[in-house]
Amino acid sequence: MAPSKFPVIEIFGPTVQGEGMVIGQKTMFVRMAGCDYRCSWCDSAFTWDGSGKAEIRMLSAAEIAAELDSIAGDTYSHVTVSGGNPALLPHLNELIELLHGSGIGVALETQGSIWQDWFLHIDELTLSPKPPSSGMKTDWDVLDTIVGKLSAQERNFSLKVVVFDETDLQYAISTHQRYNGVPFYVQAGNEDVKEQDTSLLLQALLSKYMWLVEQVMASAELTRIRVLPQLHAWLWGNKRGF
Amino acid sequence: MAPSKFPVIEIFGPTVQGEGMVIGQKTMFVRMAGCDYRCSWCDSAFTWDGSGKAEIRMLSAAEIAAELDSIAGDTYSHVTVSGGNPALLPHLNELIELLHGSGIGVALETQGSIWQDWFLHIDELTLSPKPPSSGMKTDWDVLDTIVGKLSAQERNFSLKVVVFDETDLQYAISTHQRYNGVPFYVQAGNEDVKEQDTSLLLQALLSKYMWLVEQVMASAELTRIRVLPQLHAWLWGNKRGF
Repeated sequence: MAPSKFPVIEIFGPTVQGEGMVIGQKTMFVRMAGCDYRCSWCDSAFTWDGSGKAEIRMLSAAEIAAELDSIAGDTYSHVTVSGGNPALLPHLNELIELLHGSGIGVALETQGSIWQDWFLHIDELTLSPKPPSSGMKTDWDVLDTIVGKLSAQERNFSLKVVVFDETDLQYAISTHQRYNGVPFYVQAGNEDVKEQDTSLLLQALLSKYMWLVEQVMASAELTRIRVLPQLHAWLWGNKRGF
Repeated sequence: MAPSKFPVIEIFGPTVQGEGMVIGQKTMFVRMAGCDYRCSWCDSAFTWDGSGKAEIRMLSAAEIAAELDSIAGDTYSHVTVSGGNPALLPHLNELIELLHGSGIGVALETQGSIWQDWFLHIDELTLSPKPPSSGMKTDWDVLDTIVGKLSAQERNFSLKVVVFDETDLQYAISTHQRYNGVPFYVQAGNEDVKEQDTSLLLQALLSKYMWLVEQVMASAELTRIRVLPQLHAWLWGNKRGF
């Protein structure tokens, strides 16, 4: 059988993972084009709104691995597959197996709208169901199934909810209660994904994060929980490729 | 037997853990006075330099738990025991057991200069051996023993090295190589622990973190590693009690 090809829109790094369960991890990023969602505040809309179409290359797992090596040489041992929604790719196991074979760890983030069997082989899997401010609707049956399968296999995974406002916070609380016991992260939203002045953006991100910290600290419903910013946006603003 | 008393110098929270393996965690802090080290850049020198002596209260585990409840009510389920060096306290198991009995998670940080059997019951244990800039000398035999015992029991622990300069970075590399396979964190040092202007401090901390990120990204010796700032210092500067 011919190797599968994947719609790669960006490969970059090494850089630090700026958010979620592996925050701070030195990692390469492989960003896949295509998404089943259209979040109002998506910070990577070029992966699905047509604006990045010319950048998409159909690459095999071996071609992706070769490009990672050519960019980063021997300075990396961890890869984050991002999107878009990489769970749209049924054959991604080919890339995961190839990287694992070279001793490389693989993290992946998806909204949890689609199950793939290769979820069971991801080293750090983040499920990030989207709150009301995104304009998307969560399919709870699908998410229940995904969380159930990962829990049954005792996989290393977490839930992460981005929070922009009080309605989102309520969504985070009910998600945390529904999946009690699953490591849970809330993340302050970036309301200025087009702001190019990095110091203005930093002020906005800091105050949004402080707001979220205060909400969570006062809550009796959110106790065994982590509250994080997007570190990469604090450092590099809205620039792509960091 | 009478319950043990512990030299408590601060109890505060809930707030976010600003660093290391549980960065972002909503937690209460219990800070113990007393340290076997005198790090040149210690950000909690009041725990050992005599300046906080009047604040030290000798409290039993039950008294500490009661004070946590009175400050935070039902808004917390995680406690971080900090210092000073809490590994100076042989009976700390009394506090750990009491908190665990109430379903409360317990994290702890120590430099790894002393072993205590209760290390095996900490939910998230950070060992932070001190680099050359601290002026301290690492006792590698002791640290070998500690890492060996925690590894043998498959405990949830990590190593964290604060880095101020290139000599510290070399120390971090050799520590990482010595304990290959143990989750490893490097943290950008805070050179201005007395700076009271929060926005000046933020600029200094951001550039120090960026410097460390760049060093690590270029390194072939530091790949499966996390690079983190001290989030709390970015948010609250050098204020105590956050």
